[in-house]
Amino acid sequence: MLEELKRKVFKANIDLVKHNLVLFTWGNVSAIDRKHNLMVIKPSGVSYDTMTPDDMVVVDLDGRVIEGNLRPSSDTPTHLVLYKAFPSIGGVVHTHSTYATAWAQAGKDLPNIGTTHADYFHDAVPCTEDMARKEVEGDYELETGNVIVKRFKDINPVHTPGVLVKNHGPFTWGKDADEAVYHAVVLEEVAKMAAISFTINPNLTMSEHLIEKHFNRKHGPNAYYGQK
Amino acid sequence: MLEELKRKVFKANIDLVKHNLVLFTWGNVSAIDRKHNLMVIKPSGVSYDTMTPDDMVVVDLDGRVIEGNLRPSSDTPTHLVLYKAFPSIGGVVHTHSTYATAWAQAGKDLPNIGTTHADYFHDAVPCTEDMARKEVEGDYELETGNVIVKRFKDINPVHTPGVLVKNHGPFTWGKDADEAVYHAVVLEEVAKMAAISFTINPNLTMSEHLIEKHFNRKHGPNAYYGQK
Amino acid sequence: MLEELKRKVFKANIDLVKHNLVLFTWGNVSAIDRKHNLMVIKPSGVSYDTMTPDDMVVVDLDGRVIEGNLRPSSDTPTHLVLYKAFPSIGGVVHTHSTYATAWAQAGKDLPNIGTTHADYFHDAVPCTEDMARKEVEGDYELETGNVIVKRFKDINPVHTPGVLVKNHGPFTWGKDADEAVYHAVVLEEVAKMAAISFTINPNLTMSEHLIEKHFNRKHGPNAYYGQK
Amino acid sequence: MLEELKRKVFKANIDLVKHNLVLFTWGNVSAIDRKHNLMVIKPSGVSYDTMTPDDMVVVDLDGRVIEGNLRPSSDTPTHLVLYKAFPSIGGVVHTHSTYATAWAQAGKDLPNIGTTHADYFHDAVPCTEDMARKEVEGDYELETGNVIVKRFKDINPVHTPGVLVKNHGPFTWGKDADEAVYHAVVLEEVAKMAAISFTINPNLTMSEHLIEKHFNRKHGPNAYYGQK
Repeated sequence: MLEELKRKVFKANIDLVKHNLVLFTWGNVSAIDRKHNLMVIKPSGVSYDTMTPDDMVVVDLDGRVIEGNLRPSSDTPTHLVLYKAFPSIGGVVHTHSTYATAWAQAGKDLPNIGTTHADYFHDAVPCTEDMARKEVEGDYELETGNVIVKRFKDINPVHTPGVLVKNHGPFTWGKDADEAVYHAVVLEEVAKMAAISFTINPNLTMSEHLIEKHFNRKHGPNAYYGQK
Repeated sequence: MLEELKRKVFKANIDLVKHNLVLFTWGNVSAIDRKHNLMVIKPSGVSYDTMTPDDMVVVDLDGRVIEGNLRPSSDTPTHLVLYKAFPSIGGVVHTHSTYATAWAQAGKDLPNIGTTHADYFHDAVPCTEDMARKEVEGDYELETGNVIVKRFKDINPVHTPGVLVKNHGPFTWGKDADEAVYHAVVLEEVAKMAAISFTINPNLTMSEHLIEKHFNRKHGPNAYYGQK
Repeated sequence: MLEELKRKVFKANIDLVKHNLVLFTWGNVSAIDRKHNLMVIKPSGVSYDTMTPDDMVVVDLDGRVIEGNLRPSSDTPTHLVLYKAFPSIGGVVHTHSTYATAWAQAGKDLPNIGTTHADYFHDAVPCTEDMARKEVEGDYELETGNVIVKRFKDINPVHTPGVLVKNHGPFTWGKDADEAVYHAVVLEEVAKMAAISFTINPNLTMSEHLIEKHFNRKHGPNAYYGQK
Repeated sequence: MLEELKRKVFKANIDLVKHNLVLFTWGNVSAIDRKHNLMVIKPSGVSYDTMTPDDMVVVDLDGRVIEGNLRPSSDTPTHLVLYKAFPSIGGVVHTHSTYATAWAQAGKDLPNIGTTHADYFHDAVPCTEDMARKEVEGDYELETGNVIVKRFKDINPVHTPGVLVKNHGPFTWGKDADEAVYHAVVLEEVAKMAAISFTINPNLTMSEHLIEKHFNRKHGPNAYYGQK
């Protein structure tokens, strides 16, 4: 079942490796079939070298395995919370990519200081708050999703398709698995650029109108970047 | 038409990828045919993996497409302003390369602090001023060209063939597309070196006579580097 | 003798190269056969390009060569001290990997500031004290082992399987040679992430309960990461 | 003539590229035949991609071309000064490698803060003084050699086989071209490590006895590293 989606999720997981976003098994991609309310996700702790499309796991929205011989990613509950809270997204990615994780460990929002960022993320990529002891000791991965959703109370998740989970690492999303991977690559690159920029000038600034221009050039109703 | 120039512009775009200066589609190279007043440029948002020389777009100096099935780079008006203002240049490159973009985001001129820089850029690689709201909301890409040209009022664009557009990224140029790419590679490397140097010693210095010597060794009337 | 173990130690040494943890000959992996009290280790100063499994050297726990035509790694006495002091480990790795060595040169414990660290190292990866002149001028490599063991007086070496030897570089260990290499890769990555994180926010924090959660998710009695 | 030495110098130049120490044509290796007082060096500004052993240029100790169709490296006079001043060296390398050049631009000696450094360079790798205007405007490349030699008045060039020329970049040397390249690779790596270490702890320290131990372990009369 869902053979086409499993193939896409498999390929998206492999693309994470190609873009140098994962060491060993430290990343996962999922995609949702909104019609059947089923999610396809990478299995937990399986090597990218030997993984095949058939290893992808199909779960329902309660996290029950519907198809697959392997256990789904331990981050499955986080992915599910995001799909439920953000109804227009179709793919989710989690990595421990170096610079995005460094910002998450620093506990700081990644500010929008350049057009590279503004082309894909309208606002700062927010960093979540510390999780409470009972959230961590309880249903931890589900609460990780909840703390992300809480952080997006006043942020449009489609316009800013990523987050830094404090002391942990980034999650990104998109209309499908491919776009979620694309955003993971962009996030790592802008996280690197910003770390360097602040070393050069801790007091740097960017104007609001430049942010609006770039975001809308690619995403607004009058977008004119690309081949349409 | 312009088959030879299209081939060269295509190859120069591919060279950007080889030198790790672009992620996805984030870069473009153009070249001008001064005799016919036509510019060849990369199409907008097209993947480097599938692009062919025939995808290059020919436009006139008003930006009208003369040949090609694809839309030209959205940065086309910026390139055209540069060719008009700097009559001796033949190629232009735009990238979001990591360290040069980090300096652009920092809003700082990249100072000339070493012979690697002085061999190719006589002065600091200048950072442009903030663009006004009406420039950004108006004909943005054309105004980006104008803000660059304004910054070169007292700088020789042939001796310092590059600029950092504030909060955006670098443009470089040269006598042809290949030289513009060469300068993009040098700019990224000296941007990286300088970021590290200032971390080691924020009060570093370089003498004027060493700058003059190195620039003239390669570019002055008595240049003696290379095979001549 | 010990053909299988020699093959594994050889492969583990080659894996260090694949993970970009060694320049030239600057690294070594060993493994112990607890039943026969014999250790297999890389020969000293031999190129990874030409090395074969048969070049691995077998020594007893006093460091005497039992089999092999080459001299064992000059760090052999350090490895032996670790095997004797930490009875449950089966493999040891030493590298001069860039970021872990940078922390060792900085003379600082590498603090646990993220889940990537907490997934594999329960505590800070400790940095040893300065060695006394007589330790350095005496049986230096053996004393290097002793200074490590001393540093683990109040640290569980199985839960925190690595150390930074001050002004020198990292040692890691694990249940076998492969796991020791795995920990060397993780240590380099978390050393890099932490160096960047502190540049972004020198006052960053991480909660104790998040550390406990992540460590136990992979290593506690109720671990649920991976395929079991 | 000197076919074997030309082959070795050619290969050493190619090794610079393999170790990612050069961009474009920014590096050169030479070796000396002490018996015939002839030096073999890379030609100036020639691409590594098309270069062959026959392109190597043979010059005498006054810099006159004895054999070869191309102009020798513009740094030829610097190399010759070093061979004359340091009679026991057989090979010289110049690069603009990123981190070593960053230290040279910072105008700082690269201090000996780790065993990786101490294994190959006994002292700090010194940075030269500013060159006077008349040195720069006069016989610049020869004066570059002189300023290096002057800096080694109280330093043993065999025990510390490298230098940072202020605002320019590193030169390294060794008993032959291969060892000079080896030292160039080590210098780049320790320059990187040190830049990171000082970011982590600006007040770091290293004991004298550890420096002595490591240097002598590889280079003293009782050296015991490697296979002998």
